[in-house]
Amino acid sequence: MNLQSPGNANPGHNRPAHRPGRHFLQIPGPTNVPDRILRAMDNPTMDHRSPEFGDLATKCLDGMKTIFKTDGPVVIFPASGTGAWEAALVNALSPGDTVLMAETGHFATLWKSMALKLGLKPQFLEGDWRSGADPERLADVLRRDTAHSIKAVCVVHNETSTGCVSPIAAIRAAIDAAGHPALLMVDTISSLASIDYRHDEWGVDVTVAGSQKGLMLPPGLSFNAVSDKARDAARSSGFVKSFWDWEDMIKINRTGYFPYTPATNTLYGLAEAIDMLHEEGLDAVFARHDRHAEATRRAVRAWGLDVNCTEPAHYSSSLTAVRMPEGHSADALRKVIHETFNMSLGNGLTKLADKVFRIGHLGDFNDLMLSGTLCGVELGLKVAGVPHQAGGVSAALDYLAKEAAGASNLPDAAE
Amino acid sequence: MNLQSPGNANPGHNRPAHRPGRHFLQIPGPTNVPDRILRAMDNPTMDHRSPEFGDLATKCLDGMKTIFKTDGPVVIFPASGTGAWEAALVNALSPGDTVLMAETGHFATLWKSMALKLGLKPQFLEGDWRSGADPERLADVLRRDTAHSIKAVCVVHNETSTGCVSPIAAIRAAIDAAGHPALLMVDTISSLASIDYRHDEWGVDVTVAGSQKGLMLPPGLSFNAVSDKARDAARSSGFVKSFWDWEDMIKINRTGYFPYTPATNTLYGLAEAIDMLHEEGLDAVFARHDRHAEATRRAVRAWGLDVNCTEPAHYSSSLTAVRMPEGHSADALRKVIHETFNMSLGNGLTKLADKVFRIGHLGDFNDLMLSGTLCGVELGLKVAGVPHQAGGVSAALDYLAKEAAGASNLPDAAE
Amino acid sequence: MNLQSPGNANPGHNRPAHRPGRHFLQIPGPTNVPDRILRAMDNPTMDHRSPEFGDLATKCLDGMKTIFKTDGPVVIFPASGTGAWEAALVNALSPGDTVLMAETGHFATLWKSMALKLGLKPQFLEGDWRSGADPERLADVLRRDTAHSIKAVCVVHNETSTGCVSPIAAIRAAIDAAGHPALLMVDTISSLASIDYRHDEWGVDVTVAGSQKGLMLPPGLSFNAVSDKARDAARSSGFVKSFWDWEDMIKINRTGYFPYTPATNTLYGLAEAIDMLHEEGLDAVFARHDRHAEATRRAVRAWGLDVNCTEPAHYSSSLTAVRMPEGHSADALRKVIHETFNMSLGNGLTKLADKVFRIGHLGDFNDLMLSGTLCGVELGLKVAGVPHQAGGVSAALDYLAKEAAGASNLPDAAE
Amino acid sequence: MNLQSPGNANPGHNRPAHRPGRHFLQIPGPTNVPDRILRAMDNPTMDHRSPEFGDLATKCLDGMKTIFKTDGPVVIFPASGTGAWEAALVNALSPGDTVLMAETGHFATLWKSMALKLGLKPQFLEGDWRSGADPERLADVLRRDTAHSIKAVCVVHNETSTGCVSPIAAIRAAIDAAGHPALLMVDTISSLASIDYRHDEWGVDVTVAGSQKGLMLPPGLSFNAVSDKARDAARSSGFVKSFWDWEDMIKINRTGYFPYTPATNTLYGLAEAIDMLHEEGLDAVFARHDRHAEATRRAVRAWGLDVNCTEPAHYSSSLTAVRMPEGHSADALRKVIHETFNMSLGNGLTKLADKVFRIGHLGDFNDLMLSGTLCGVELGLKVAGVPHQAGGVSAALDYLAKEAAGASNLPDAAE
Repeated sequence: MNLQSPGNANPGHNRPAHRPGRHFLQIPGPTNVPDRILRAMDNPTMDHRSPEFGDLATKCLDGMKTIFKTDGPVVIFPASGTGAWEAALVNALSPGDTVLMAETGHFATLWKSMALKLGLKPQFLEGDWRSGADPERLADVLRRDTAHSIKAVCVVHNETSTGCVSPIAAIRAAIDAAGHPALLMVDTISSLASIDYRHDEWGVDVTVAGSQKGLMLPPGLSFNAVSDKARDAARSSGFVKSFWDWEDMIKINRTGYFPYTPATNTLYGLAEAIDMLHEEGLDAVFARHDRHAEATRRAVRAWGLDVNCTEPAHYSSSLTAVRMPEGHSADALRKVIHETFNMSLGNGLTKLADKVFRIGHLGDFNDLMLSGTLCGVELGLKVAGVPHQAGGVSAALDYLAKEAAGASNLPDAAE
Repeated sequence: MNLQSPGNANPGHNRPAHRPGRHFLQIPGPTNVPDRILRAMDNPTMDHRSPEFGDLATKCLDGMKTIFKTDGPVVIFPASGTGAWEAALVNALSPGDTVLMAETGHFATLWKSMALKLGLKPQFLEGDWRSGADPERLADVLRRDTAHSIKAVCVVHNETSTGCVSPIAAIRAAIDAAGHPALLMVDTISSLASIDYRHDEWGVDVTVAGSQKGLMLPPGLSFNAVSDKARDAARSSGFVKSFWDWEDMIKINRTGYFPYTPATNTLYGLAEAIDMLHEEGLDAVFARHDRHAEATRRAVRAWGLDVNCTEPAHYSSSLTAVRMPEGHSADALRKVIHETFNMSLGNGLTKLADKVFRIGHLGDFNDLMLSGTLCGVELGLKVAGVPHQAGGVSAALDYLAKEAAGASNLPDAAE
Repeated sequence: MNLQSPGNANPGHNRPAHRPGRHFLQIPGPTNVPDRILRAMDNPTMDHRSPEFGDLATKCLDGMKTIFKTDGPVVIFPASGTGAWEAALVNALSPGDTVLMAETGHFATLWKSMALKLGLKPQFLEGDWRSGADPERLADVLRRDTAHSIKAVCVVHNETSTGCVSPIAAIRAAIDAAGHPALLMVDTISSLASIDYRHDEWGVDVTVAGSQKGLMLPPGLSFNAVSDKARDAARSSGFVKSFWDWEDMIKINRTGYFPYTPATNTLYGLAEAIDMLHEEGLDAVFARHDRHAEATRRAVRAWGLDVNCTEPAHYSSSLTAVRMPEGHSADALRKVIHETFNMSLGNGLTKLADKVFRIGHLGDFNDLMLSGTLCGVELGLKVAGVPHQAGGVSAALDYLAKEAAGASNLPDAAE
Repeated sequence: MNLQSPGNANPGHNRPAHRPGRHFLQIPGPTNVPDRILRAMDNPTMDHRSPEFGDLATKCLDGMKTIFKTDGPVVIFPASGTGAWEAALVNALSPGDTVLMAETGHFATLWKSMALKLGLKPQFLEGDWRSGADPERLADVLRRDTAHSIKAVCVVHNETSTGCVSPIAAIRAAIDAAGHPALLMVDTISSLASIDYRHDEWGVDVTVAGSQKGLMLPPGLSFNAVSDKARDAARSSGFVKSFWDWEDMIKINRTGYFPYTPATNTLYGLAEAIDMLHEEGLDAVFARHDRHAEATRRAVRAWGLDVNCTEPAHYSSSLTAVRMPEGHSADALRKVIHETFNMSLGNGLTKLADKVFRIGHLGDFNDLMLSGTLCGVELGLKVAGVPHQAGGVSAALDYLAKEAAGASNLPDAAE
């Protein structure tokens, strides 16, 4: 099986066996894994009981604290992100517990469905799939919950289906202002290491994350950053669990090892990713994502299309969901772009199916990769016959040039 | 962080930064990942919603049926092997169910502890850690369980801590002979693709496996092969679960996709591993493991040491646990071998701690790698001052030469 | 040494250690080596006297005939392209021989200097560095050479310094029309496998090529395709040589081996490259390069800049040299683009130093990589303050969209 | 083409497509390329005119001085080792010059043939192919050359065909004692970075080396270390040359660049190799090779076979050539070992064809890889029916254990 040409692994489907050039993987994750990480992972698997492994694990466990910005423990599961959602719920809660969840979009809905499936009672605060969670509305619900039956508030920081960010610090403030003891659980799967995030400072109790987005790794690792309050709550959890049990992990992690076989080669990559993020500097990483998101929105507007997120304060810096003109299919456009220009874009999910396409601009990414991506969208709009105005790419380039000129203190010819 | 030199990643610990030559990873898993698989995994992560991914997933899902020898579904979890243990229990059973488990060794004990933790009632049939499970003793228990309160019999096929194999076909026959309806669950984590195994023919209901042993992959994937009877049982399971839910997987797998993000790059490797196993031929793979195990036992006996497994019919072909002479520490020997000869061996676990060392000879392995491994043990015995007789390696070589001469119909000088 | 981040291997120069995203290597070679080739090369070196090596070498030797379009022998040197220039001269000629060389640009001049250095008498037909060689002017010289003292005509097919292609078939026709017996030697280092080329049909005697351009490999292999006439001439060559000797190679190559150690791992890559070129189809490869070159020229013109090549029939499809406006430094622009946008462009050489920059669009390349490249140039022009008009990228996108719509028979919204 | 299984790339030859385990590449070069080097080479090719490349080249050029132990320039050719032989001759000498060459074996004979072919007059001091060059006999010839017509003495330091080392320091002393001004040229292709070598201290004028032996790289780079005296001689060289010209290289190398395209990816590997050699320490590298060679000779003697080298002071530490018993074919043995045990050994060359097989034990190698190698030979002797005595591997293990015990100050049970 020829796996090297993601664009056309199946010649039997009338596609040529080799497609020239690199595939543009511009879904909002998995993201483009840099060569440096792929090469780190392409090393012989080591004995996970050896002294060398202990050094590696310690580097990963300590390093992830700097990414979550927490002094507390980070649990690393050899599992993809959905597992970390489940771990958050089954450790800190008990069957029958009420949880308040904000309907920010598809992934918030999936998390809610999981909660239901696990026997929790999710109270789902309706949303419009075009903005982040509203701290005030959450606070309202909490204030009415005088019996404190709500045990946790669950929010998706960056809703990957809509391109909207929820204001976590404000949500914590609102919970506190409501005088409610609920835990705060936040899904940062598509924001961590792309958008500013501060587990401790923002008072989050459980942060959920995965490897395949801002951490620039393939899928296969997921994370829980855990506050003391969450660990306390976990002590009285009524859920049975074994694989997901925080305390089993935390206890053995202290020695540099894991209670069961870890995903060794992905940990090789994680150690490298942590180094790379700090080499660039987390603030620079966030600023780069902000810049790329703004350039993308300028392109979208110039095309005469709408950014799905209606609330500027909630714009996502890791992806942009773009609404199709009425009567036009986002999936038809994505198909043209995939087949003609060898680029993958994210599809609209459930309520947004076929109505939006999503441009991922997170992870290991730079100005020219973004430019090529936006050109691919503009080309696709042209080739697929989607009504739009010229000038999207130009608008993005104007902005990127201005930003670059500002950054380098060079004269800017555009002004 | 220099990950390339597993033998010495931490120069600060007074070890040289580069150790020459390849590390001998002779623990009973993770095994030596062949270059062909590492290179397949070292490809850009693809969109797991793309048509190309569908082809890859279908190849993996169908291919794994040929490895388990089943026509039924195989569930692939993006998680390490412990997860597949949990999945087997929480899908097919309900809290409070009694399960009959055979104490074959450390891993059987861990599985029992997990069952307890999950709220099951494990009945643990005592074992001596030097042989596999006894079908007759299991049948006795089942015959006495006239109320059929035992819902499942759980057996580790190849007990990695002791080097003993349990006779699965005979156990199924014994269950049937006892007229008991219990499900049969088998852990093949360290036997699948190394030792002959037949899910359908042997009437197994749930087979548990992992990626990092006979499948020659890094850790990060685990498997359940599932019978119709197990799926039926799962419909009335009282366990809440989401990540581990079989039916969510099986339903979506039919389309070539997964309900949540799969471990894409490890699946690249799995597709390659399946090809490699069939290129060699499963029967040839099993014969090779049998040959290496026999050569190892001949070396052990020539050294005057004891193979831990006392029952020849239960000898494991994927690893050999070797008992140390009284008064000598297996861990001290392993340390000498690791530091002086750059080889990792498996340690003795719990009841066998410091009393045995374990030689892994499974996965991507050949006569000269085995020879080097046995030389490493013999050198270690000499250097560590462990009393032994000369001639272990010679005995192994005599056997390997004879086997090779037989296989190739060449004249055998040894006769 | 951190080799993974070509854009910033030297943190000591006040650049961050990790630069996000992929470097855009848009010099006219070495080109972007596809992952599939890098992975093929990343395999253990094999015994170059083994049967397996014979299979590999035979595949490479036979495969290269299909790339050169010749039935005659192809000699593969474990050396970079300059060596193949030298091999052409020292095999087919003798010290003191006169050779007629067309001054198409920097590389033609280097080849002339080499000829001089080797004791040949190059007659250098002056050129303007803005067009390919003129068959008629070459024929004039040959017609005047009634003594047939000119032993070879040497032409660079695609002059990498100027972006001009010389009409090889017409040059052969002109030589024949002049009734001159001179050999025809052609350098295809930056055209082979990018621009249509036919060694046999066009009557070329020696074709020179290298690995690091259209063949998509790292540097380290070079080639001579050799006609019978050239081999005949070589029999009376007065040059002493050993490493470069054609006949030593050709004789042993017949058995699948080489007279001295070949560059084994680069041959792994070459076998893969040949497969990839045929999977796409050579005609499709050439059409793709033509399309990218035309798109680039449209961008250049829209910016109000000049393509260096003044003769449309001579436009190169593998690179475009762009002339800077008077008073502006090409190298200053390239520096801005390298530092700010992580893209390498080719510099102007000797006569064109600082006056042109060169955009490589050859090798493993596609529409979106080209788009990103042109965006990088447009951004650079803006940030560096180079006077230009807006719309270069837009013009390129218009063309690419139209071409794509035509190719896929999709409705074209642009019309 | 499946390049991943060197042992069986051609299933059409009735060999299975996948052969389990690693191939043992025990020819005396190319050697086993360590993963760390393969991964360094598996990075995107960079612009060889970029600042980053300058850093890389400088590291390689400076680093190689520490390997040759010279303060003078080292020239790196993007070509395999034969090219560096030619470069040594055509730079420092002139056509018609007499050179005194010592017939140490096959490679000395090839170098002599090259000298002849290049128009030099080699005087070939006959040897027995079982010992290194004799300083006294060389001095005799020089003393008789009162006209100083001999311009250079050429010696192969480690003759790869025979396993004999020539005493370079003693040869220099003998030349000096003879009062003869001849240059001293030494081929260290199979000794550099394996056996102690000191270009400056030993008064060598040109040292020739290649990448694919002790430097642990694939073939594709070769080297000349050059004394001032050699550079002076080169100024009056009558050979025409271009690719091989030292001064063109040395001049441009000072800036960190090369006069023509370098083998970039192999230089990535070279930088890594230099680091690895210094991490282990050159003295430790040499001691390791000495130990492995002694262990190998002990095995050979215990088998009752003869080491080809008859002069203990000339024993090679990078390979051992073993003589077959009369009437037995070395190539038949090698074929059995290759087909049955997946190990490549070196064949006997010309005078030694079919009479010896050669065990390479150089490069990235350790005690257990050597043990596996010797087991492979012992197994082959058994299976092929070659008369021998038992105990070769045992003798080697005894020695290795004793050495290891000594090194680690552990009690040695063998005493």
